[in-house]
Amino acid sequence: MQFISKKARAVTPYTAGEQPRGAQFIKLNTNENPYPPSPRVKAVLDAFDPAGLRRYPDPASGRLRAAIAQAEGVSPDCVFCGNGSDEVLALCFPAFFGADEPACFPAVTYTFYDVFAHLFDVPFARVPMREEFYLDLDRLADTPCKGYLIANPNAPTGVGIGREEMAAFLARVPEKLVILDEAYMDFFGQSCAPLIKTCRNLLVVKTFSKSYALAGIRCGYALGDPALIDALTRAKDCFNSYPVDALCEAVCAAAVLDRDYYAGTLARVREERERLRGELLALGFTVPESAANFLFAGRFKADGGTLYRYLKEHGILVRFWDKPFLRDFVRITVGTREENDALLAALRALAAG
Amino acid sequence: MQFISKKARAVTPYTAGEQPRGAQFIKLNTNENPYPPSPRVKAVLDAFDPAGLRRYPDPASGRLRAAIAQAEGVSPDCVFCGNGSDEVLALCFPAFFGADEPACFPAVTYTFYDVFAHLFDVPFARVPMREEFYLDLDRLADTPCKGYLIANPNAPTGVGIGREEMAAFLARVPEKLVILDEAYMDFFGQSCAPLIKTCRNLLVVKTFSKSYALAGIRCGYALGDPALIDALTRAKDCFNSYPVDALCEAVCAAAVLDRDYYAGTLARVREERERLRGELLALGFTVPESAANFLFAGRFKADGGTLYRYLKEHGILVRFWDKPFLRDFVRITVGTREENDALLAALRALAAG
Repeated sequence: MQFISKKARAVTPYTAGEQPRGAQFIKLNTNENPYPPSPRVKAVLDAFDPAGLRRYPDPASGRLRAAIAQAEGVSPDCVFCGNGSDEVLALCFPAFFGADEPACFPAVTYTFYDVFAHLFDVPFARVPMREEFYLDLDRLADTPCKGYLIANPNAPTGVGIGREEMAAFLARVPEKLVILDEAYMDFFGQSCAPLIKTCRNLLVVKTFSKSYALAGIRCGYALGDPALIDALTRAKDCFNSYPVDALCEAVCAAAVLDRDYYAGTLARVREERERLRGELLALGFTVPESAANFLFAGRFKADGGTLYRYLKEHGILVRFWDKPFLRDFVRITVGTREENDALLAALRALAAG
Repeated sequence: MQFISKKARAVTPYTAGEQPRGAQFIKLNTNENPYPPSPRVKAVLDAFDPAGLRRYPDPASGRLRAAIAQAEGVSPDCVFCGNGSDEVLALCFPAFFGADEPACFPAVTYTFYDVFAHLFDVPFARVPMREEFYLDLDRLADTPCKGYLIANPNAPTGVGIGREEMAAFLARVPEKLVILDEAYMDFFGQSCAPLIKTCRNLLVVKTFSKSYALAGIRCGYALGDPALIDALTRAKDCFNSYPVDALCEAVCAAAVLDRDYYAGTLARVREERERLRGELLALGFTVPESAANFLFAGRFKADGGTLYRYLKEHGILVRFWDKPFLRDFVRITVGTREENDALLAALRALAAG
């Protein structure tokens, strides 16, 4: 159609995991939390006066940034909030990169990064993995670029890099910006957020979608030097002045401070992750050790696509990418004990068949 | 700072109206609705189960698009939803324009358009007004471009163009895309939304922020040919797959169908608008006839900046731009009768002083 831009015709958009409506699936495909969010969320909704919605939300998300700052032990001017960490990551491109300011990221990582780069016309280098599953930090450090996007724990492998190793990497590239996408970090406990006070080249991006069980509310944030936060704010104010709505701000400000509740659900997810991985290994799967709330599992009787379709026929959704390397695996979100048992039963039937 | 992109350093972000927290102002500066949203919003919040928030929202916003389609009398595949109409308008740039696909808009209009254009590196032409307050549709039609952004009613003048006149313009430029920003259209009642079935070059953008009194929830939408909606969806899926959160979807789906409630609040706003304009004219202001929920008023005793500061000292916020032509005026949101009376009392004191 003549009205569509050349760019919109040429780009390959990001494909999110299936979100079936109505159908009854055991949904282990989009790394959602198997447990509900903090009970404080219900209290916020009950107390919320809808009359206030006639007003625009605070464009600076002041209340939410104060709560995040308190939870993270940083100053509110080190916090930026957006409509999901995807939006925060997207805004990083115009804020920090450009046509002659290239980005760099690992060859196997969150597949949205190269989509963002294409949207904002940012060139990028992809650095191959070390021994399939592991980031090659040496080679990353040696690659010419303006800065990096590194998911830690990585997606979809689940492999995590400890804080000390990442601190050493940050020190090796002081003249380059390092954006750490810590969407799954709460399942690992090695966040580099405490390093933002000393590393001016560090931006840490987090989300309420995974550990906080609030994927439905759309909120993510970045932590970094106030100059980095200011650049993100400028990018936001060129795109959408009020991306975080008033209900979202109230809900997330309450949730982020409920440390005790989430400590419990995090522990349960980690425990199930280890149990599930052990069972998958025992069945004969290849499964790298995971620091996230999912497992990257494959090389078992069939390719990933066959596994994906088999499980879907058995009412279980997992995530599959028909791409080199990835197509040998599926990504399985850690569910409740019952959901994981159902998955294992289906896989045992496949093994026995 | 070395990490900031050249673009982020060079752009001038959009400046939203003040959103003071805590201070007690009569707030007539951001065109918010003086009346609360539909009572159905409270019912939605009360019934909402927060456990569902652990799941991502529907990336296609299916339930909300179905409700909007019903309210607008179109098919759901003619509806696109975003995180405020600002996001919808921003996504129009990569979807429909490009480096050699220029945009065109009136010289006096919503000041976010040129910010979007700079963010996405889209060149644009600005067409001067006809007799200060009026769009020059002839000159717009004759300007070479890929397409137009036209706010109707226009901002910040409030001047509206009737459906028949706009239909004639659409027919004059069948090979160019016409994006009509109808943020304030419900206060005028001349929407071109019914024309999308016959005009493939028309995209109508609307918002829940003004007539629906839901600025705090962040939702806007576009109506147009499915091919246009598909291009917007592709642009969205390069930026943020899930921009409309689950609570927002539920709230707006309920509100958009409460026609009776909003007919009442719209009538009250229009009635107050006419009363307030009459009083301002009587005081000696220049005020073009408004089709929106605000008045563009000035050339009275002092420049707009002086008026803005005087009113702020008297506890009343209005909107002021220190730019050629605009600086002779302020934009005054139509408030409740009591708020408008307070404004008029302050202005009468100024007139008498």
